[in-house]
Amino acid sequence: MRAKLVVRPSPFVAHNNFGGGFVSDHDRVALNSMRFASADSAGASRSSFFPSDGAHGPGGKGGINVLEASMDQLNMTLPPWAIRAGARRDIYFDPAQTTAAIVTCGGLCPGLNDVVQGLVNKLTDYGVPEGKILGIKYGFRGFYDPQVKPIVLSKRVVDGIQLQGGTILGTSRGGANIREIVKRIDMWGIDMLFVVGGNGGNAGANAINAMCRQHDVPCSVVGVPKSIDNDILLIDKCFGFDTAVEESQRALMAAKVEASSARKGIGLVKLMGRQSGFIAMQASMASGVVDACLIPEVAFKLDGDNGMLKYLDNVIKAKGHAVVCVAEGAGQDILEDGGQIGTDASGNPILKDIGAFLKDKFKAYFKDADIKYIDPSYMIRSVSTTTNDRIYCKILAHNAVHAAFAGFTGITVGLVNTHYVYLPIPVIIQAPRKVDPRGKAWNRLRASIGQPSFQ
Amino acid sequence: MRAKLVVRPSPFVAHNNFGGGFVSDHDRVALNSMRFASADSAGASRSSFFPSDGAHGPGGKGGINVLEASMDQLNMTLPPWAIRAGARRDIYFDPAQTTAAIVTCGGLCPGLNDVVQGLVNKLTDYGVPEGKILGIKYGFRGFYDPQVKPIVLSKRVVDGIQLQGGTILGTSRGGANIREIVKRIDMWGIDMLFVVGGNGGNAGANAINAMCRQHDVPCSVVGVPKSIDNDILLIDKCFGFDTAVEESQRALMAAKVEASSARKGIGLVKLMGRQSGFIAMQASMASGVVDACLIPEVAFKLDGDNGMLKYLDNVIKAKGHAVVCVAEGAGQDILEDGGQIGTDASGNPILKDIGAFLKDKFKAYFKDADIKYIDPSYMIRSVSTTTNDRIYCKILAHNAVHAAFAGFTGITVGLVNTHYVYLPIPVIIQAPRKVDPRGKAWNRLRASIGQPSFQ
Amino acid sequence: MRAKLVVRPSPFVAHNNFGGGFVSDHDRVALNSMRFASADSAGASRSSFFPSDGAHGPGGKGGINVLEASMDQLNMTLPPWAIRAGARRDIYFDPAQTTAAIVTCGGLCPGLNDVVQGLVNKLTDYGVPEGKILGIKYGFRGFYDPQVKPIVLSKRVVDGIQLQGGTILGTSRGGANIREIVKRIDMWGIDMLFVVGGNGGNAGANAINAMCRQHDVPCSVVGVPKSIDNDILLIDKCFGFDTAVEESQRALMAAKVEASSARKGIGLVKLMGRQSGFIAMQASMASGVVDACLIPEVAFKLDGDNGMLKYLDNVIKAKGHAVVCVAEGAGQDILEDGGQIGTDASGNPILKDIGAFLKDKFKAYFKDADIKYIDPSYMIRSVSTTTNDRIYCKILAHNAVHAAFAGFTGITVGLVNTHYVYLPIPVIIQAPRKVDPRGKAWNRLRASIGQPSFQ
Amino acid sequence: MRAKLVVRPSPFVAHNNFGGGFVSDHDRVALNSMRFASADSAGASRSSFFPSDGAHGPGGKGGINVLEASMDQLNMTLPPWAIRAGARRDIYFDPAQTTAAIVTCGGLCPGLNDVVQGLVNKLTDYGVPEGKILGIKYGFRGFYDPQVKPIVLSKRVVDGIQLQGGTILGTSRGGANIREIVKRIDMWGIDMLFVVGGNGGNAGANAINAMCRQHDVPCSVVGVPKSIDNDILLIDKCFGFDTAVEESQRALMAAKVEASSARKGIGLVKLMGRQSGFIAMQASMASGVVDACLIPEVAFKLDGDNGMLKYLDNVIKAKGHAVVCVAEGAGQDILEDGGQIGTDASGNPILKDIGAFLKDKFKAYFKDADIKYIDPSYMIRSVSTTTNDRIYCKILAHNAVHAAFAGFTGITVGLVNTHYVYLPIPVIIQAPRKVDPRGKAWNRLRASIGQPSFQ
Repeated sequence: MRAKLVVRPSPFVAHNNFGGGFVSDHDRVALNSMRFASADSAGASRSSFFPSDGAHGPGGKGGINVLEASMDQLNMTLPPWAIRAGARRDIYFDPAQTTAAIVTCGGLCPGLNDVVQGLVNKLTDYGVPEGKILGIKYGFRGFYDPQVKPIVLSKRVVDGIQLQGGTILGTSRGGANIREIVKRIDMWGIDMLFVVGGNGGNAGANAINAMCRQHDVPCSVVGVPKSIDNDILLIDKCFGFDTAVEESQRALMAAKVEASSARKGIGLVKLMGRQSGFIAMQASMASGVVDACLIPEVAFKLDGDNGMLKYLDNVIKAKGHAVVCVAEGAGQDILEDGGQIGTDASGNPILKDIGAFLKDKFKAYFKDADIKYIDPSYMIRSVSTTTNDRIYCKILAHNAVHAAFAGFTGITVGLVNTHYVYLPIPVIIQAPRKVDPRGKAWNRLRASIGQPSFQ
Repeated sequence: MRAKLVVRPSPFVAHNNFGGGFVSDHDRVALNSMRFASADSAGASRSSFFPSDGAHGPGGKGGINVLEASMDQLNMTLPPWAIRAGARRDIYFDPAQTTAAIVTCGGLCPGLNDVVQGLVNKLTDYGVPEGKILGIKYGFRGFYDPQVKPIVLSKRVVDGIQLQGGTILGTSRGGANIREIVKRIDMWGIDMLFVVGGNGGNAGANAINAMCRQHDVPCSVVGVPKSIDNDILLIDKCFGFDTAVEESQRALMAAKVEASSARKGIGLVKLMGRQSGFIAMQASMASGVVDACLIPEVAFKLDGDNGMLKYLDNVIKAKGHAVVCVAEGAGQDILEDGGQIGTDASGNPILKDIGAFLKDKFKAYFKDADIKYIDPSYMIRSVSTTTNDRIYCKILAHNAVHAAFAGFTGITVGLVNTHYVYLPIPVIIQAPRKVDPRGKAWNRLRASIGQPSFQ
Repeated sequence: MRAKLVVRPSPFVAHNNFGGGFVSDHDRVALNSMRFASADSAGASRSSFFPSDGAHGPGGKGGINVLEASMDQLNMTLPPWAIRAGARRDIYFDPAQTTAAIVTCGGLCPGLNDVVQGLVNKLTDYGVPEGKILGIKYGFRGFYDPQVKPIVLSKRVVDGIQLQGGTILGTSRGGANIREIVKRIDMWGIDMLFVVGGNGGNAGANAINAMCRQHDVPCSVVGVPKSIDNDILLIDKCFGFDTAVEESQRALMAAKVEASSARKGIGLVKLMGRQSGFIAMQASMASGVVDACLIPEVAFKLDGDNGMLKYLDNVIKAKGHAVVCVAEGAGQDILEDGGQIGTDASGNPILKDIGAFLKDKFKAYFKDADIKYIDPSYMIRSVSTTTNDRIYCKILAHNAVHAAFAGFTGITVGLVNTHYVYLPIPVIIQAPRKVDPRGKAWNRLRASIGQPSFQ
Repeated sequence: MRAKLVVRPSPFVAHNNFGGGFVSDHDRVALNSMRFASADSAGASRSSFFPSDGAHGPGGKGGINVLEASMDQLNMTLPPWAIRAGARRDIYFDPAQTTAAIVTCGGLCPGLNDVVQGLVNKLTDYGVPEGKILGIKYGFRGFYDPQVKPIVLSKRVVDGIQLQGGTILGTSRGGANIREIVKRIDMWGIDMLFVVGGNGGNAGANAINAMCRQHDVPCSVVGVPKSIDNDILLIDKCFGFDTAVEESQRALMAAKVEASSARKGIGLVKLMGRQSGFIAMQASMASGVVDACLIPEVAFKLDGDNGMLKYLDNVIKAKGHAVVCVAEGAGQDILEDGGQIGTDASGNPILKDIGAFLKDKFKAYFKDADIKYIDPSYMIRSVSTTTNDRIYCKILAHNAVHAAFAGFTGITVGLVNTHYVYLPIPVIIQAPRKVDPRGKAWNRLRASIGQPSFQ
């Protein structure tokens, strides 16, 4: 897109970007920083398709092991490096003439308001004038739904919103009517669009970008990947994930207290995680109270000598009670009629309720057990952020603005090996990031709580 | 040390380490994953002493930019790679015959109990028998102080301690009488010693290791680096740091409320950070309420047109109040008689009180201002951990035990580029890690709050 | 019972009860401290059956207005005064020879561990020897269930338990097999039994006391009334209630965030309150985010011009979203087949799920609304106490021990008009305390949130 | 004042005040609900000056025992009854023509924003028009300081402020220039003034009222008593007090963790309480970790066999560490030169720092002790309210508005024996409420922690 835009110096050149200087378009961050000694090393076995020469990563032999679990779903070659994020010396939009729009899509996630605030603040710092930052209401449909109008955002409007959960813009699933959206982008003269969304939101952003390019609509489209499930490919961690793990401790602790205060008590907690069990895994790891953790990536049997019911029975015999943490997408294969019952407006499959299913199974198997089932989902996703996420959201937002002014489009911001980067949207949306059943993280949890294989 | 020990298979071989396999001694993690395009890129300028060939890091041109601020204090070449941490297939101690000791040293830090718990749990999982895990009381001096005796640790003793702040072992500064300590290690037949401590604690561990090697005392000495200031070289983040940043928000928010509820109110918060301002920087970044942040790494003037007092005056004129966050080690040069007034028992310089100094300066300069000074140090360092730190402590502890059983000694565990590693103690204690005044993190804070240079 | 016991001086006589002296058996606390000018005064109308002479209460005209809502269920005359609680100079058990037992009954409630701790501490302070304080496991059935044995309680065992939710004794519903229990009281030589329980627990305590008296078993039976619903007659507030209201804010705030982040969002929160809506009322009052509050004491219609659905429609039209808080026992009459479907082991009616019912009704009525239903019950009742409740539990427990040593039996401790008292168990269990639909508290909520009558 | 005003029906008559009816001016609440059997009963000894006939209180023999500690400072007879607070059927101001002003005075206290919000909401509900509710900035001086102007308050402006600490109006000490204030009341046509303040604020309100009456300025002056120290006479509890006790737990727990993690550790916490030790007493009672509590009302010696230092020595010998909680006004007599060093702008005596004094004494006495001194004052008073206080503030505010519309002036709202009342300002400001050293509350604390007399 840059070719059609006029280059000019960043307004931050005056003070050399607060003394910190600028980032070159040619700076790179390695996607992998691990070198396996051999295919026998834990986590190394399936990385071999990555070329092993120095040009493709730091490891002589090795590769991007965190991807293993998602690999068979990949349909494009992953790059060994990503472009470093940050303020550029040259920018391609005149701030004084720039109109920007922000939209939040999909389910709630801690940090949405932090990101919105960060975008508005940095746009204003660049010099985008009062009145030219639009907040699209209730997701993509807010572009064209006649009943809702965009709101005008300013530093004053977003002051303090980081202390509230949710999103002041509102959100919804679906609504990615690309033609209608691009029509408004053109009509309203939007120069840069920031899409804060998950897989669906990023796919929408990608399609919007494609149509803008096709029709020469000079709008830079930048994604800020949002997934409370933490299932965005290549990225160290999604914003809001830390907060979700922190907040989920309340539910797990409640389950522990309930279970241990009852005779043969079983506390059962269902946590978020449709295709990826990161929240359940990390929350269980942190809590120190979970006896069994079930995630979508790892199949399990209930019955039989190796089944979970038998295992729970042993736990209860040993200490009088047990706590189980299950990700919402776990065990879909064992739900009678195959689990999925259609898709929601974001295109996510609607899941059968594994929590209710397990509760019933436990009731049937443990006749005299006292089962307490907790589903804290809304109470987790609606809280405000921990400081870690607060900082992360702010930097993601700032880098998204830097990207747009630098004339990047069709990209998304992220954190890779502790560095901030820009990645092409198509790369990260080709498959969800998953917990690798043979990787270190899952292994550490199992080793910590002594969980056997339920196979 | 391995040469003098008998190798045997890990007890976890039976189930292939819960299905996750083992780590090879030859797996490596890159210390740097950034490649700068040129010396003009932000943060790149002073990395040039790193060789730019592929053998030393992922970057053609580049280096370990996080080290810049500490570089002139380094006295040994930094390695480009670190050894990957994790369970080994071969171990060098017979768990059934192993005696282990744990000591916590220096000031309190969130996570000490998490680490102690993790060590005890993993030692027990290896098969160290009940009664053979000793907790040394009140730091190094607990080895030989006739008034305190070690306590026996077990899974039952450490159950639930992660929910308490502090350390159940007690701690103290100093006391590293190496000869006396090694005498007890020998007498008591301690096979592995885990030292949870800061710079002083790690230096002690290093000296203990050296004397053990010299006198053929077959004890594996493994460090778990503890620094609430986050000033350990090469490591992504120290345990307890996230928690400290989180908890410091209370003080900053209190300062904001006090300042904004008073006419010409100034809230002044002193946070921890003797030589490194990471807590002050990150807490200020997260809070969204700080107008000026002062850290040890960045000199500042109070007076003059570019001085902080003039700047604060402008802030107060613009919005009626201001909040200042200062790290305890900041501005030591401007304290009249040179700042330092001796060293404490850990060998840390005793700092002059920059908080009280600034409070007086503010009072003198702003005649009618209402100044509220908050020093929350003890209320921050004594809390229990956030989940992030809880998980981190657990994995550090587990990897420390894996290291000891694998026959490593004189090493410390850490997190590098999101991977767990083992590093030689001498490498990490040669200098404190510092905030790079020209690096991205400090730059992001300044850009976020619009802080000028006070020079 | 005193007639059969030997009186002796309290061990606290030595220091005159820490300088505070002792309470006389003849000290009294007025159950009512309000005098209505006329039957027209708010809340006065139905108090007239109380005699209006000075002998029955402070008010010339007036009465105990908080009872109005429960009055038609009362079957015994309420006393105007209660006996003041506190340490007596004369005690009727020799502490050195005393065996005490503690049992917790019914559902979890914040403060159970506080009460258990307070009982153990004060018994020990009186001089009850190590080993003679028994904790009955899992409620009344723990007296005779062959699979569980009492545990021995001591100051060391209860140290720190106030920071945990739940009850270290375990609890269960039902199990009040009086004959079996009294058999064990006699066999085990239990001199004083403390029953921490709700209506069921107190009824059990009453029956145990009656059978003890009948068979001359010299055991003092003292109740500590527990009801998270706050539905114990005559008492200012039940322990754990404040904590429950505090904790319920999380659910209400989550509902607000979810509702306001969605287009036509409705947040629906079901809180505890089987027969009495105190939690829902106070939680709604505190939150400032609830648009409609439904409690068991106040009938409501869904349909029609005055119905709640029409009202909600108006709220959503006015501000885009709405939050509803419903007590679990509300609207049982409008659930199709009459609501109740049997009773649980405590004798409490099993309620139909008004939350799920309303959710379905909302879905049917508001076609395009986005409804988020939160049921936080277990996450509320399992938390540890706020300081208010912590202090309250401690004083209740201490006064229970004072009562037992003073030879009282068949009584319960409570707080009346801010003073601690002893009340006969039969008086408080004859009916649940209810929210008075015409009283000030309900009126204040309606006035605060502008809630019309849904009739 | 009513004589000069026109009576009219309340706007709430239409729906009979949301179905709850109205309060009669002749409804009364007893200030005492306790009847002592004799002067020997704990707490009864000094109540005898109250007439013992039924006309003056519920007790035949008895009196208002909570007042004992403050009695020798009283200079007017206390009434046995207070006027019941609440909405009146007849009001004396036309809401549509009413201008109201709100001012917050003195130090911060949790709940100020809750009260401001409650006042604005209820004034608006009465029908006071948009633009006619003024917020006076930074305390009394905001009436006449040329540099600050009142702000206009509305439901929108106060929306959500209950979640912030501090006061959106700002506050300051002193400034009660009565003549200047009454001049503005008259000029600006203020019909009702709400003064949220402590002793100084209420004294100011009283003087303003007197001058308004004297000059026939038809302004109703209503106080909302604010004292984080909880030292307002006759009132069950001051708003913000519960929150302060809750928040102070953090400091006490930090002190416990610090003390118990050090060898011979002493944790010392200074809490608020200039003349009254309620916060220190209740916080110590709740915490379960305090070994000695020092309050202004109870003299103590440091040295000698009964002195606190000897006692602490014994505690440290027994369990290795100790925690001391001291109210800021405690022990002023033992500070060398007599303690007081002038008064602050509110007229409060400036206290010598007992915390620093004790810290030094401890250091001198316990040579090798590790002393951690925590002064959390600003971090406590700046937090937002717990639900208890939130509800309390709201009802106080609503009743203040009811009082003003009912034509009351020179009165303050309060809670007495769990009922809301109106009290003449002069009655409550004649002396601070104090902890009775011979009363039950102090006695319970001493009995709970086993604290001897340090005399």
